[in-house]
Parts: sequence; C-alpha cells; structure tokens
Amino acid sequence: MNIGIVGLGLIGGSLGLDLRAQGHQVFGVSRREQTCKAAIKTGVVDHASVNLTLLAAADVVFICTPIAAITSTVNLLIPHLSTTAIVTDVGSVKAPVVEALAHLWPNFVGGHPMAGTADSGLEAAQPHLFAGKPYVLTPNETTSPDAVKTVEEIVRSLHAQVYHCRPEEHDRAVGWISHLPVIVSASLIAACLSENDYAVVDLARQLASSGFRDTSRVGGGNPELGVMMARYNRSELLRSLYQYRQNLDRFIGQIEQGDWEALEQQLQRTQHARPQFVSNKDA
Amino acid sequence: MNIGIVGLGLIGGSLGLDLRAQGHQVFGVSRREQTCKAAIKTGVVDHASVNLTLLAAADVVFICTPIAAITSTVNLLIPHLSTTAIVTDVGSVKAPVVEALAHLWPNFVGGHPMAGTADSGLEAAQPHLFAGKPYVLTPNETTSPDAVKTVEEIVRSLHAQVYHCRPEEHDRAVGWISHLPVIVSASLIAACLSENDYAVVDLARQLASSGFRDTSRVGGGNPELGVMMARYNRSELLRSLYQYRQNLDRFIGQIEQGDWEALEQQLQRTQHARPQFVSNKDA
Repeated sequence: MNIGIVGLGLIGGSLGLDLRAQGHQVFGVSRREQTCKAAIKTGVVDHASVNLTLLAAADVVFICTPIAAITSTVNLLIPHLSTTAIVTDVGSVKAPVVEALAHLWPNFVGGHPMAGTADSGLEAAQPHLFAGKPYVLTPNETTSPDAVKTVEEIVRSLHAQVYHCRPEEHDRAVGWISHLPVIVSASLIAACLSENDYAVVDLARQLASSGFRDTSRVGGGNPELGVMMARYNRSELLRSLYQYRQNLDRFIGQIEQGDWEALEQQLQRTQHARPQFVSNKDA
Repeated sequence: MNIGIVGLGLIGGSLGLDLRAQGHQVFGVSRREQTCKAAIKTGVVDHASVNLTLLAAADVVFICTPIAAITSTVNLLIPHLSTTAIVTDVGSVKAPVVEALAHLWPNFVGGHPMAGTADSGLEAAQPHLFAGKPYVLTPNETTSPDAVKTVEEIVRSLHAQVYHCRPEEHDRAVGWISHLPVIVSASLIAACLSENDYAVVDLARQLASSGFRDTSRVGGGNPELGVMMARYNRSELLRSLYQYRQNLDRFIGQIEQGDWEALEQQLQRTQHARPQFVSNKDA
C-alpha cells in the first residue's frame, strides 16, 4: 500500500518506521527540507518532500501535524489526492477535527493513537511505539465504513488496541483521564509556589518524594500541549473541572468540619475505585 | 547501646533490623504476642514483649505506633524508663506530638523518617529502608541538645539524610508536598466517579494511562493514613488547600475566558518550577 504521512515528528516518524517495516511504500511530507532529508536517512520514509504533491499516489494519508494545523493541511492536500484516498489524523481532540473534515472529505476517519512520550520530534521516533497502546477511531454517521475498515486494519497491524467511539465520547473520556489531570497537577505546583516562607519552601523541596513527584508530573509537562488540549477540548475540560472543584470542596468541607468518618468513607471510595482505571496496565 | 522500639510495624521493624545489624541490643514491644514472636523469629529484635517494662534498660526508645497512640504510649512508658533515657517518635505530623511530649519528658526528640512504602506491618520491614531517605528531627526550645545529638547519630548510622527544623515548619512543608497531594489526587478519582454516562466511564477506564495513573496514585492510598494526616495536620492542610483552590480557580478562569496566553505562561511557570522539587531524586 502507498502510505502518506504529513508531519514527521514523534507520531508520524514512528508510524513510518513500522509501516515501512511491513513493506508499505511510505511517502513523508514535512515543512522543513532538513526533516525530509533526516527522515530518508533514518529509514522513516521511502520518499520525502516539502510539497504535498508527493501524496498524489497515496492510498491512505496520516495527518500527523499539531492539531491546530490539521484542517488547513487537509484543505491544502485535497487538490492533490486521488478520489479514493483515505485520510486519517492523529489529533488528541476529535470532535472539532471530525466536524471540520467529515464533510470536506468523505473518506476521512478521525483517529487518536495514545502513545505519546515525554520527547517529541523526528529524533524521538521509534519502532513499535503503538504496540499495546490504545488507538481510538472516531467515525461519525457520515464516515465511510470501508475507510474505517482500512484504517483499522493498518492500526491493528501496529499491534495497537483499537477502540471505536463517537468523537464527543472520545473527547469527554480523555477530558477526564488525560486533560483534567494536567490542570489538577499544574495547580498543585502553582499552589506550592505561593508559599512565601522561604525556609518552608526550601524544606518542602528537600523532602518532596515519590508522592509529590507523581502527582506533579503531568503538570510540569509541555505548556504548548496543555494549551492545545484546553483550547480544543475546552467545554469538556471545563465540565470535568467543575466536577473536580465540587469534589475538592467536599473534601475541604469534611476537613473543616472534622468529619473524619465521612473523609474516611470518601478515601475508601477513591482507594476502591482507582484500580478500575489503572489495572492491567504497566504499574 | 540498648534500643527500645514500641510498635513493630514497617518502620519499627526496619529500624530493628538495621540497629541489630550494627550490634545494638534491640528490645521490641508490640500489643500482640504473635508479633513479638514473629519479630524475634525474623531477627528484627533481640527481646520482645507485650509489656513496656521490657524497656527499663533502654538508652533510647523509638515510639513507632500510629500517631494517635504516641502520647498515650509515652505516658504509659514513663514509669518504666531510666531517668536518662531518650525518647523519640516517628510520627508524620510533629507540632501536636512535640507539644504534648516536650514537657512530659525532657529527653524527648520529635522525628519523622520519610521512608514509607505501599506496604505496612512487620512483614513489610526491610533492611536499609532509611538509607538515602530524609529523616527530619524537630527539636523545640526545650529539647535537650544532648538528646538531639544522640538521636541524630543513630539516624546518621542508618544512612538517612538528616534535616533539623521546628515542628511547625515540618508540618507546613509536608502539608504542601505530602498531604495536599493526597486530597488533590483523591479529588481527581472522585470527580471521575461523578461521570454518569456509562459508555464514557468505560472508555475512560480503557484509555487511562500513565498520566492518570501517576496523578491518581496517592489518592488511591491507605484511607486511614489519609484521615490521620488530615486530623493531625488539619490547619496546615486546610491552608494549603485554600491556596490550591485559588490556583485551580485561576486556571479555570483562564480556560473559561480563552486566555491562552495567560494559560501558557502559567504552564511554563509550573514546568519550570517542578524540577526544583523533584531534581536529584529517583526519576
């Protein structure tokens, strides 16, 4: 199969490595000439160009640009595509992308591989990045079932775990488990920075261990990614933040009132519930 | 030296293993006969009893009971102690303990080894538990300097990193980096449980990965420990929670208003600040 990839970063580059290894012809497009050269040199693609015309022969095109560039990229790509070409994206928010593209290209399938690492860029690309990781496909009522089937076959060949859902369900779910934790965690770091007794801050830094490290990790991540997720998944993120604040206020109220029995019940509830979200995954 | 240990759980048991290995005579007291027998069998102590009279010959006594039992234990212990004996505790909140005990026993030194594991009880005891971990000593103005010096020497022999500070400073610092994260993290789990679209909850569980796992970890921990920390460090925990809520509300406001520039600046600030708390520690 002829596979096109637009955007040769961590995700696009890793896709290229795996798909070439399976014998597909991979055509990569990057905005930068230097990235095109590096992609050919490192075996990520067979052919590379800064020009979308390279993708005229592609059967399936993966749009792996930042989410803000997906719609404009597909608009520029369409004049060069064969009419039967399938287009799919890898953006981490799906409803706005699917809404913008479903009517623009009948063979568009929204997708989201949940396989990020702390690193980014072509240099971070690696084989088997998607193996064992969730890969969500978000067709809507207008999406061609054949296009979904083809994308799903490719995704399964990466040994990813395929999930199907509506774009809105995807965005709500990742709002809870991926986007809300970023703001929760960043607020923890920001709160600690508000302490103005320097001796206490210094001591807190010395004493901070695994509990603080884990709870603050995603709040210390890439600010651009944080803004993107808030920008594109704004209504779902706000909905989860309002629920979060209500639950936080309930805990605060229990501690203010010294209602230790209620606090213990709540903590038993969270202790009991957590394994439902994290079981069967790398500890 | 003759070392007494009251409470043979994870901390008391691990202290016994290390101190015996150094050649000290270790005398252990537990409420349960069965624990006494197991402690002798596993080499945690030289002598064990359910009776505090065992500690008449002790030079230094570590009180390793749950925090709620520290004061009553020391009250029961005093009639049996030699007048020169030094008493120290391992409770995770220091101001209330030091306040209660400093006048009761002149040779009392507050202490807090920050070396917990997810497991508890004598079975979880292990050698070298304290090596490389912080161990905070919290003398106040009435504490005997000689007593502090003796406890510090023992703690250094465990290869722990010793810190000295006032009890109130300790409680404020651990409020930020140890107790606040528990409520922040538990609120995240509780918020996710409020979602009433079952398809979304199911999807969220399937898709949850390292970000959710890390941010939710301490919120899924031991409920009794959570209640104890809230109960004994209540005012400092509430102070940090109010600051946390203010910072959360600032993030919510930025997202509501679509002020992406301000949001990015805040996330840059938290990204920049986090390494000050987690650098030079196991990643």
